[in-house]
Amino acid sequence: MTDRPKAVVLLSGGLDSTTCLAIALSQGFDVYALSFRYGQRHEHELKMAAQIAAQTGVIEHRIVDIDLRAFGGSALTDDAFEVPKDRSINEMEDSIPVTYVPARNTVFLSYALAWAEVLSCFSIFIGVNALDYSGYPDCRPEFIEAFENMANLATKAAVEGQRKLSIHTPLLHMTKAQIVATGLSLGVDYSLTSTCYDPTEDGRACGSCDACLLRRKGFAENQMEDPIPYLI
Amino acid sequence: MTDRPKAVVLLSGGLDSTTCLAIALSQGFDVYALSFRYGQRHEHELKMAAQIAAQTGVIEHRIVDIDLRAFGGSALTDDAFEVPKDRSINEMEDSIPVTYVPARNTVFLSYALAWAEVLSCFSIFIGVNALDYSGYPDCRPEFIEAFENMANLATKAAVEGQRKLSIHTPLLHMTKAQIVATGLSLGVDYSLTSTCYDPTEDGRACGSCDACLLRRKGFAENQMEDPIPYLI
Repeated sequence: MTDRPKAVVLLSGGLDSTTCLAIALSQGFDVYALSFRYGQRHEHELKMAAQIAAQTGVIEHRIVDIDLRAFGGSALTDDAFEVPKDRSINEMEDSIPVTYVPARNTVFLSYALAWAEVLSCFSIFIGVNALDYSGYPDCRPEFIEAFENMANLATKAAVEGQRKLSIHTPLLHMTKAQIVATGLSLGVDYSLTSTCYDPTEDGRACGSCDACLLRRKGFAENQMEDPIPYLI
Repeated sequence: MTDRPKAVVLLSGGLDSTTCLAIALSQGFDVYALSFRYGQRHEHELKMAAQIAAQTGVIEHRIVDIDLRAFGGSALTDDAFEVPKDRSINEMEDSIPVTYVPARNTVFLSYALAWAEVLSCFSIFIGVNALDYSGYPDCRPEFIEAFENMANLATKAAVEGQRKLSIHTPLLHMTKAQIVATGLSLGVDYSLTSTCYDPTEDGRACGSCDACLLRRKGFAENQMEDPIPYLI
């Protein structure tokens, strides 16, 4: 036990959540990292999440099994859909992509809330980003605010008038380039992160899904080499 | 496919959710019933939920595995706690009971939201009740309202300006006696329902946990015999 405040940090093993974790640590939180095995086709990211958690000194890392494949409806959880490739930024911003997983962030944040309540923790970090990937409804500031409001009515602590719970979204208004720059300044080892929606069996990124394209753009704008292996 | 509106109904197999299901059917909804295997010690209720779903003509019944035992913190999901017995109604109302499961309704409603989104469904029914069991924070009207508000910012339909999603809580302001009376008027077969937090292996209700005591009171106030078997 330390005197430091606790935070539950949602950690997918991707670039954004890993940067978000580094920010939480740099702000002096004792971090409880939470990942999900939710039927994603890019389960490789969970191996990376475990390594990141181990190397950054979080207090505890849990991977919870949840079954979003039960409902389908997304290219990430339903093999009936294909992951789109080689789209322009304009195409990405044009509509909500098929990689959107129905209510995913709502479900993830609900689990984070459950763990936070058991831990007597009043901070949850999530690496959502409204700028470079505005297509996902559950990455928008108004959604986060509404979730925080709901969370403060949902728990025992809320009813008993204890401290208010905050959802921290340090990346919300950053570009991908700013996220990379912030992470590098905090010493994030991006070689451990996995961003691709459709990696190869041996863990190489496809290089052409929306997530790869945005990530590469972020490194390019920092004149940096992305340290992970790509298929193309 | 029918022209009837769709509803996702949270169905635990208990008295409240089964009555709630009957109300949704009576209002003309095509019902998609959703149950959870969440590590509850009273898993017997899931067998009952499956029978209820089969006999009432829901379109589909899904039981989703979720792991709330990963976090513990409740007598229903953590064997370190005991289920309280033989408490008075005053004692029940005095504080949030140890049977409260952290963020359970938030997690359940999040899954309901995910399924509703995939189904293009804009109604979710949950049998929460703020009168006879005011101890649970996530059964209060202000929580439900905040969840509904959040849900309407969380989904693709919300962003694309489609219909508003409603969380229906027909039991919210009913006493347990009124719930039983409503269910009986709709032909609910309460012999199929399971309410007890701590049933015997062969499915008999303990008769003395808070849930049993409230249920029995509801039947007694209707001058009705509760059709389920009790241990005592």
